Amino acid sequence: MGKKARKKVLLALGGNALLRANEKGTDLEQLGHIRETCKYFLKLLEKGYDLAITHGNGPQVGAILLQNEMAKAKLPSMPLDLCGAKSQGFIGYMLARELFNALKQAGCKKEAVCLVTQVLVDPKDRAFQNPAKPIGPFYSELEAKKLEVEKGWQLVLQTGKGFRRVVPSPEPIGIVEAKTIKELFLKGRIVIACGGGGIPVVQKADGSLVGVEAVIDKDHTAAFLAQEIGADLLVILTDVEQVAINFGKNNQQNLNRLSVEEAEKYLLSGEFGKGSMGPKVEAARHFVLKGGSAMITSLEKCLEALEGKTGTLIYK
Amino acid sequence: MGKKARKKVLLALGGNALLRANEKGTDLEQLGHIRETCKYFLKLLEKGYDLAITHGNGPQVGAILLQNEMAKAKLPSMPLDLCGAKSQGFIGYMLARELFNALKQAGCKKEAVCLVTQVLVDPKDRAFQNPAKPIGPFYSELEAKKLEVEKGWQLVLQTGKGFRRVVPSPEPIGIVEAKTIKELFLKGRIVIACGGGGIPVVQKADGSLVGVEAVIDKDHTAAFLAQEIGADLLVILTDVEQVAINFGKNNQQNLNRLSVEEAEKYLLSGEFGKGSMGPKVEAARHFVLKGGSAMITSLEKCLEALEGKTGTLIYK
Repeated sequence: MGKKARKKVLLALGGNALLRANEKGTDLEQLGHIRETCKYFLKLLEKGYDLAITHGNGPQVGAILLQNEMAKAKLPSMPLDLCGAKSQGFIGYMLARELFNALKQAGCKKEAVCLVTQVLVDPKDRAFQNPAKPIGPFYSELEAKKLEVEKGWQLVLQTGKGFRRVVPSPEPIGIVEAKTIKELFLKGRIVIACGGGGIPVVQKADGSLVGVEAVIDKDHTAAFLAQEIGADLLVILTDVEQVAINFGKNNQQNLNRLSVEEAEKYLLSGEFGKGSMGPKVEAARHFVLKGGSAMITSLEKCLEALEGKTGTLIYK
Repeated sequence: MGKKARKKVLLALGGNALLRANEKGTDLEQLGHIRETCKYFLKLLEKGYDLAITHGNGPQVGAILLQNEMAKAKLPSMPLDLCGAKSQGFIGYMLARELFNALKQAGCKKEAVCLVTQVLVDPKDRAFQNPAKPIGPFYSELEAKKLEVEKGWQLVLQTGKGFRRVVPSPEPIGIVEAKTIKELFLKGRIVIACGGGGIPVVQKADGSLVGVEAVIDKDHTAAFLAQEIGADLLVILTDVEQVAINFGKNNQQNLNRLSVEEAEKYLLSGEFGKGSMGPKVEAARHFVLKGGSAMITSLEKCLEALEGKTGTLIYK
């Protein structure tokens, strides 16, 4: 791979890249997707991009929470920060190993490494007053009432499915391991970090960290991480090739470019789905406002998008 | 902390340092122990030692396997390498966070970071022909027979407790992330790596890595890691202050020093417990034969041991 300055890209990988909604969640299913994913990563490396990788953990942490629930007669349940930490080890290992394999096959000397990562949130973040992120298994009304009393959880009814726990989704304000991640990234390592948005911690008055029961949006963390490690470009990978307005309607319009002003306008008017495209556009906008470039596209089209042929470029 | 060359120590932390046999395994129990543990680590740092840390995962991976089992009606079970990866994330986060807190309180600028680590084993290792490491929950004879057929597991009867799965415990022959661990360690980072003996992988003829259903002895991995990262001293922490011969008998004799020749003699005569002190002495012996120093002692007495007041020094 060439000697000229390589462009530094942070890739944010959606949960869909690891597991599909119609799958059981076996290790072989997940590894199959990760192998495919790594082939696309390799193409980017071969084109001269340096990569750091972050990823979602929705289905995986969901499975860990359901296991907690089903084993609670014999084993104490673990709080959300520890469940997130488990998912980082689990997904990080699969990604690191399959990246190793893809690199080996291509005769590429780069190395992949996964860091367990804590992400700082503000205990005064308004999200703590308004837990809104649904997580984990569904419960009956009776179970839900019991959990509200016993554990202080908040649960909401999801029509036709039952009650589900909601947790706060605060903004990232710091990455505990940022210095190490940056150092390794600048040396050309493929660093896998901040999985699942990072393990959420708050800092107490004495400076010490404690874990909190929250989930940080992985795209928001990606935008923060991209800035911390000096990435040139943030690429948010999702299951569509481009951001669209009037999505799914007759007059759907795919966007090649989206200015931060347009992005803000559309976000305010609710053009993008709250749990889907909204946070991605918002994260991209944040990073662009801080001076970076951002692209939203699919894994399959990523290379073409970086060549300017597709994807949605968010610009200032 | 001083400017003179700091002694580079790899600490291998026993499972007991994280969870006691009579405990339920709650997060608060484990965090309590880890906080205590970090106080001792801090003393070593303040005395001028650079630290890398590895740790066992017996109780934690046991809990993950039991959760797998109890949730199997709804969720696919995960193979052992992925369960080990989960435990690395989980324990590594707790250690990194509480080290951060201990360092912060002491006004020490050092940083702790946990790497998800894969450890290479030889597919021709004789351990694969003779799975001997018991792991996970106990089963009835009927369940055991079913698992032998369905999953190809080997199970053994543990008197009075039922049938338990046994897996191979091969020797470590490589650490995939060694270069990064060493680099960070030499820069003074407190690196947490190779948790639970490392995630076991084998390398196929084409160079690619695959996970295997095995458990690598964490002290053997520690000896290997100590050499790979250029540690001066390997300290294996256990629940006794010193290695002893005639342990538990009237003529028990605690050892201040143990030569590699004596160690070999005692290992051959079965002087040390196979699942307890044996692998520790063997690991220490290995590292000393490669030119390092090794000490076996308890966490509480570690500093005194490094000052030559207690512990068992293994020497050549």
